Order: sequence, then structure tokens, then C-alpha cells
Amino acid sequence: MSDLPKFVEINEEGPREGFQFEKGAIATSRKVELIDALSATGLRQIQVASFVNPKNVPGCADADEVVARFSRKPGIRYTALWLNAKGFERALATGRLDLQGSISLTASETFLKRNQNRDFAQNLEAQREIMALHKRHGVTVERASIMAAFGCNFEGDVPISRVLGLIDDILALAAENDLSIKTLSLADTMAWATPLSIKRMIGAVREHNPELRLGLHLHDTRGMGIANALAGLEMGVDLFDAAVAGLGGCPFAAHKGAAGNVCTEDLVFMLHEMGVETGVDLPRLIDAAELAENIVGHPLPGSIKVGGPLDQLRAPHH
Amino acid sequence: MSDLPKFVEINEEGPREGFQFEKGAIATSRKVELIDALSATGLRQIQVASFVNPKNVPGCADADEVVARFSRKPGIRYTALWLNAKGFERALATGRLDLQGSISLTASETFLKRNQNRDFAQNLEAQREIMALHKRHGVTVERASIMAAFGCNFEGDVPISRVLGLIDDILALAAENDLSIKTLSLADTMAWATPLSIKRMIGAVREHNPELRLGLHLHDTRGMGIANALAGLEMGVDLFDAAVAGLGGCPFAAHKGAAGNVCTEDLVFMLHEMGVETGVDLPRLIDAAELAENIVGHPLPGSIKVGGPLDQLRAPHH
Repeated sequence: MSDLPKFVEINEEGPREGFQFEKGAIATSRKVELIDALSATGLRQIQVASFVNPKNVPGCADADEVVARFSRKPGIRYTALWLNAKGFERALATGRLDLQGSISLTASETFLKRNQNRDFAQNLEAQREIMALHKRHGVTVERASIMAAFGCNFEGDVPISRVLGLIDDILALAAENDLSIKTLSLADTMAWATPLSIKRMIGAVREHNPELRLGLHLHDTRGMGIANALAGLEMGVDLFDAAVAGLGGCPFAAHKGAAGNVCTEDLVFMLHEMGVETGVDLPRLIDAAELAENIVGHPLPGSIKVGGPLDQLRAPHH
Repeated sequence: MSDLPKFVEINEEGPREGFQFEKGAIATSRKVELIDALSATGLRQIQVASFVNPKNVPGCADADEVVARFSRKPGIRYTALWLNAKGFERALATGRLDLQGSISLTASETFLKRNQNRDFAQNLEAQREIMALHKRHGVTVERASIMAAFGCNFEGDVPISRVLGLIDDILALAAENDLSIKTLSLADTMAWATPLSIKRMIGAVREHNPELRLGLHLHDTRGMGIANALAGLEMGVDLFDAAVAGLGGCPFAAHKGAAGNVCTEDLVFMLHEMGVETGVDLPRLIDAAELAENIVGHPLPGSIKVGGPLDQLRAPHH
């Protein structure tokens, strides 16, 4: 059918990415409702909460309660985000999550300072501690991510060489702990990537580290989300973060709006139409997107929930 | 820099495509204001009006007046759309347009009947008459388009073989009149295309008719507009229709919403960021997009006017 990957794995991040960005408080029960709706779509990984400092991200203060209340469905990995020991311990204490250790570097020091109040050296040290902490608790660390990998609203373009250097740092950290990083996620946190820069970056990282599986975390702030996903696909990337209805965005990224992640159902639509499987039931996912819109109480950016999928229009003609 | 085309030609269709789709009446003076704003952006071709039956498309009833009142700027081709002799004569009578003859076939007979009340045979005959009419008035016909080339909400997928057959019809019609079609535009009128179907179609048409320059007319109804443009670019397509702010959509296409054309400023952003020139001043184009939004009185779909371009964020760091 094509030379694209046969199957693409999607990490749904809407429940975590989405609600931290909303201005008003979202009721815990409604967050749980969305997670449960997403569990019925065929998605195999859902990031359900962010265990970060409630002072910095008040919308995530109820993370423990959200995790206590959603219904676990077999075959789905329910993950969460944390940035330090305290967050990790909160996630661990829930006893209801599929803990995946991961370390995270950031390609822009200015953004790192604003987002996490650390410089490059402090962040490397913090990741070293997180890795050791995970190890003590028997949680494997096989994943790493690099935020702002394509550019930064505060610093401008990020050179590929800097990203390659950060990968070296990540692999050195892992080696210190006899761990092996298998998956690297490149995050276009502030939507600087274009299809061309995606292809160049993926090509350079593949050349530098052919052993790593690469994933993309894309934001649609400048309308390039789906085109950037396509560029990744064409380079063989088969792992994408996405957010239902295009929920989300980072409150520290200095955007004036439309800062959401690439929209899960639009991405799934494109993949299915191009013969790439995802295991997702698109109509159910669109239902979940409509629920997300109902929960936040304002239109969300996804297109397929408005334009409609094609299968129902095809059916009568077959 | 890349193997993409070095320069892409954009036909701005916002003033024509956009306002026919709006529910309320748009004042003639405001349509003129948008055309004049677009003339200041570096765009080289602007479709300013549609000379169609005002009974069918009331929003275009003032086409003659719009054309009489906008300010012509040297170096820009101001074009218009017409579907029959009466429309052509109205366009000719303005004396202020850069008339480009063109013939238009449609790949879905059901859609053709709804849109123009003709079957395939009647439409071919109508195009024969239009071609002869143009010839009598000394207007060259070097362009042709195929609507609904990728699929139809009423008929489903369109096989590539049907499009190739229509191209044969177009070229035979031209040959009857000793005319030579140089440019063929493939229109994804109802947003059925995906990057993969774009690449397949362009590949097949190039194989069938290597002598034709190909253009794409894309709609963003299902969120694939920019990704589809990218797919076209990667196949060497260097001619795109687009609409400022993503204005537009066809009132006969049975969409429930978000039916606009691919957004000019988002396309220009992607092209410039990938090193492809367009001759367009992006900040001025964004100003025109904001004007379009002000004119219609509701948010329009483009992303860059919200997310902001990157050059201003880069500047302090150089």
C-alpha cells in the first residue's frame, strides 16, 4: 500500500496536557469521564495526570484523585508525568499507574529556567537523581525526551548539534546506571518545527544513534502539526504523542493561543486513510473529542470532529 | 537547502471563495478593502470575484461592482471565475480583469449535477462552448481544472483512472480548437485527499501527461490541507490555490463546517520556513488575514495569525 510504517503507536496525552492549559477549574469527575471515554477507543497508552507542583500548575492539583477514580481497562498502559522525586513518589503511591521511568532534557536553557527553574547543569543533575530514584524503586528507565528540540520562542532556532549533544548526555547518564535508553522522544514544545526540519533532525539523530526508536511530540500552534507528523512518518517514525481534540499546550511557552498538541483524531484519520493501522476506533475517538469540547466549554481545534470522517460517506457506494 | 521547488506560485482565492460561503451579506466596500490589502502583500495572482448566477450564490451578486472598485496594482493578475457564457461576458465587460480562459470538468457526476445542474456529457458540451466563446474573444485557454478529483461526499472515492480519462477529454477538447492546455489544476473540492492519495494521483498524472504543469486546489475540511500541500510540494508541485485566513468553502459540498481552502498565510509560513520562496510578505499577509476575520465577524481557521510567525522571535538572537 505504501512505504509508511504499518502500525503507529499513539500516546494519548489529552487528559494530562489538556487540562493544565485551561483557564477555569475542570471538575475531577469530568477528567475521569474523559479518561474512561478514551479507554473505550482502542488507544493503548493514555497519560492521565501530571504530578507537578500544584502551586505552579493548579489545574493538576487533583492528580492523585483523578488517578484513584478512573476505571482501568486491561491492555491499556495508564501513565503519568512527573518532574522530580516528589512527583514520582505521588505517582508511585497511587498504585494504579503503569510507571514508565523517563528522563527529560531541554534544548533551550532559557525555556528550562522558566519551565523548571533549572539551568542545563542543574537539570542534568536532577535527571541523574531521578534515574537513581527510579532504579531504587525498580522502575525501568527506557525512555528519554528532549523538549524544545526544534526551536524556542525565547532563544530561536535550536541547532541539530545541540540535540545530538543532549542525546550523548542522556546515554552517558543511562550508562552510569547500567540502564539502556530504547526510545527517544523529540518534542516540538513551542511549534518551531517544519516538515523539512523534522526530516533533517530525524535523519541526523538516526545517523548519530541508529539504535534508538524515535518518537515525536508535536504542537500545532503554527498549523504544522499534521504536516510535521507526516514528515516524521515518511522518515519511519511510528510513535507519536497526541491529544484528543487538540487539547493542551504548555502554560510556560509564551503563546498567545492555539497552543494545542497535534490532534489525535485528525492524526488517526490521516493514518487510517493512508493504510497505517493504529488500533483506534475513529468514531469512538471523535465521540471522546466531542466530550472533551463539552468539558472545557469552548471549541477545540480538531478538524475531523467537524468535517466528519469518510467511511460513513463511502459505505453506501460499496 | 532542499529538493523542494525553489519558488511556489500562489493563486489567492480568498475574496472569491471566501465570501460566497458566508451566511450574512458582506458589504461591497469591505470586499474591495480585502482585495486592496491583498494587493499589498506581494501575491501575484488574486481571484477577486465570481460571475455566477446571483440566484444560486447571492453573496456574489455584486461581482461587477467589486471589480469596478478595487485598485489595480501593476504586476498582479486579477482574475475571476465564471462557469458559462453569461458569466464570461460579465467578466469581459468590466474591462478591469486579467482574463484567463479555463475549462473545468468534475470527477463526480452527482456533485456536478448538484453544483452546476449538468451531467458529464452536458458539461463536456458546455466546456466546448466556453472554449469556443473564449477563442472568439481572443482569450487564451491554457488552464483546465478537475473538481472533486480525489473523492466526493456523494459518490465516495474517485479512481485515478477516471481523472486520467477526464484529462484525455480536456486535451481532446483543446485539440479541436487548436489550443494547448499548459496547466491542470486538481481540486480536492470536498477534502477527500490525503498526502498518500495526492502523491499517487500526481504521480499517475505526471506519467500520463508529463507535459502538463500541475496545480493543487486544496480544502482543509478534514485538517489535511497543509499536509496535502506538503505532499504536492514533495512531488514537485509549485502552483497552489489558497485563501487568506482559510476563508471559503463550496456551498454545494454538503459540509457541516470548517470547509475553507488551505490557508494562504499558513502555507506561506511553511514554504518560507522550508526555504521555498513565494514573493509574499508574511506579516502583511497576516494583516490581511486579520482584516478578513474582521470583515466576516467570526474566527477564521488559519493558525499563524494566532501562533505568530518565527522571524520576529529569531531577530533578537542574531
